[in-house]
Amino acid sequence: MKLAIDAMGGDNAPEQILLGVNRALKEMPDLELLVFGDEKKISTYLDQNSRAQIVHAPDVILGTDEPVRAVRRKKESSLVMMAEAVSKKEAAACVSAGNTGALMAAGLFVVGRIDGVERPALAPTFPTIDGKGFVMLDAGANSDAKPEHLLQYAVMGSVYAEKVRGIDKPRVGLLNIGTEEKKGNELTKAAFKLLSDAKEFHFIGNVESRELLNGAADVVVTDGFTGNMVLKTIEGSALSIFSMLKSALTASTKSKIGALLLKEELRSLKNKMDYSEYGGAGLFGLKAPVIKAHGSSDANAFFHAIEQAYKMAQSNVPSIIETQIASGKE
Amino acid sequence: MKLAIDAMGGDNAPEQILLGVNRALKEMPDLELLVFGDEKKISTYLDQNSRAQIVHAPDVILGTDEPVRAVRRKKESSLVMMAEAVSKKEAAACVSAGNTGALMAAGLFVVGRIDGVERPALAPTFPTIDGKGFVMLDAGANSDAKPEHLLQYAVMGSVYAEKVRGIDKPRVGLLNIGTEEKKGNELTKAAFKLLSDAKEFHFIGNVESRELLNGAADVVVTDGFTGNMVLKTIEGSALSIFSMLKSALTASTKSKIGALLLKEELRSLKNKMDYSEYGGAGLFGLKAPVIKAHGSSDANAFFHAIEQAYKMAQSNVPSIIETQIASGKE
Repeated sequence: MKLAIDAMGGDNAPEQILLGVNRALKEMPDLELLVFGDEKKISTYLDQNSRAQIVHAPDVILGTDEPVRAVRRKKESSLVMMAEAVSKKEAAACVSAGNTGALMAAGLFVVGRIDGVERPALAPTFPTIDGKGFVMLDAGANSDAKPEHLLQYAVMGSVYAEKVRGIDKPRVGLLNIGTEEKKGNELTKAAFKLLSDAKEFHFIGNVESRELLNGAADVVVTDGFTGNMVLKTIEGSALSIFSMLKSALTASTKSKIGALLLKEELRSLKNKMDYSEYGGAGLFGLKAPVIKAHGSSDANAFFHAIEQAYKMAQSNVPSIIETQIASGKE
Repeated sequence: MKLAIDAMGGDNAPEQILLGVNRALKEMPDLELLVFGDEKKISTYLDQNSRAQIVHAPDVILGTDEPVRAVRRKKESSLVMMAEAVSKKEAAACVSAGNTGALMAAGLFVVGRIDGVERPALAPTFPTIDGKGFVMLDAGANSDAKPEHLLQYAVMGSVYAEKVRGIDKPRVGLLNIGTEEKKGNELTKAAFKLLSDAKEFHFIGNVESRELLNGAADVVVTDGFTGNMVLKTIEGSALSIFSMLKSALTASTKSKIGALLLKEELRSLKNKMDYSEYGGAGLFGLKAPVIKAHGSSDANAFFHAIEQAYKMAQSNVPSIIETQIASGKE
């Protein structure tokens, strides 16, 4: 299995990216990699390995670049060259921690959509209290969505949860502001009907955002605006609460001693909320797996994103999605 | 100043409601109240006070009742009779901790919309880390909204923040998935233009949900679907994290001792996240202030909701909103 890696994307590139790459090469014996980026910098960190080939990319897309323009103009960037390798079938899937918009644009214009899929969707996996996690899509690839798009998101998310996350009969929920059938806006009311009638997945009805971290569903379907909003609200609430907690723990000598006694428990709490174990966000609906690793990925997070791309490619997620989307249209 | 109170609504009615009423009568010397509900039950808890008059209401709207039907049929319920008192100008404003949908319906059909206001909005106040808080509207009165509705929400929220919360030139932000002007869905892109051109308030542009608890704006404007989603996501994330924290604090003898040393700090942390100090959610755009106290209100939360209704009525918020909406249309 050969994958393509963008070594230059993300806040901690290239060092942490390549430490993740080294680990993946060590732990996954049949993994082969094409590593795109600055040859000199890459060779500083990449362990010598016959299964890893450096491909020099003279340019890099920055986080501040306008995504679509960057993909069109920076043809020799590590991100675009990585996507080209997938398009030419030199690699089965690709992973980048770089500019999200640029990766989505490269996915769409270079890798290409699966026939029948109207809109690709960005699908991160979130942690839950029970440690099982859930995948949510769309988390922001397309701000506006039609009911038919949400139906396709449900198909794609369900295939992913089953084939990659190993969940039998994944529970698919529609993100809404109430659990009753008639709740919501025009979009969710129409989507509810479509999802209820579909046979390709196990629809459990509406789920509310306050139940997400309690594991209300394995796959949560929503439009990209709402998904992105909820993603950022969960992140922001957790960060704010943890920052207040940190101030509380260091407020006095007494509280510092208390914090010391709680050290292990607080670390395990933080690990529970850590989504790096779940890999990156998949860009679903493309002809090959494209994984967006978190911009702040460390070696561990990037390793899990590589693992995720590998599993998606190995279990043929894109072709199963294509078959299911086609059968749903019959 | 005479207000109308629904003594029978909410999880802790009538006891906690009436303890809040007793406190309000004690602390606010010119407050007069009409207290609607079961006369016998009310007189058990309500302190004898010449400024509080019990009005017997034989019926009650339950949390499980279908809102619009309940308001139409249960004419002798405490909630509907309270709204009627406002409509007949026997009271200047009203407060209930009961069925949110029924209170919105009673607000709309019994109290009535301000001329020129197209849609009333539900406006709760959220805590922020710095303790100042922000008001968000619409939190769910109308799932679907047009750009013009968001413009009116901005006017109403700004008047409230200035007159009731005492904020000079309140910062009005549009809730969006990015801070740049062109971010978002069709609704937010169109609303951005309208809000930028308006003169009636101080628009600061888009705000992201992850910055809300950091105090990104004093007034946050959004459609009711998104607002309700964000409200429930913040609540749910906070509850999930606190529940995990609680397990961590009681995991072992060692951690229990640690928790004991941190007792004060953890209590102050919880208080910071407590929105009962900010009163209930206002239903803005009606001819008189209608306040929805939280369903789980205790005496303290209900007291603050009464205080909020009093301030809104005293500073003539509805008539200022009417004037500003009319002037914006010229």
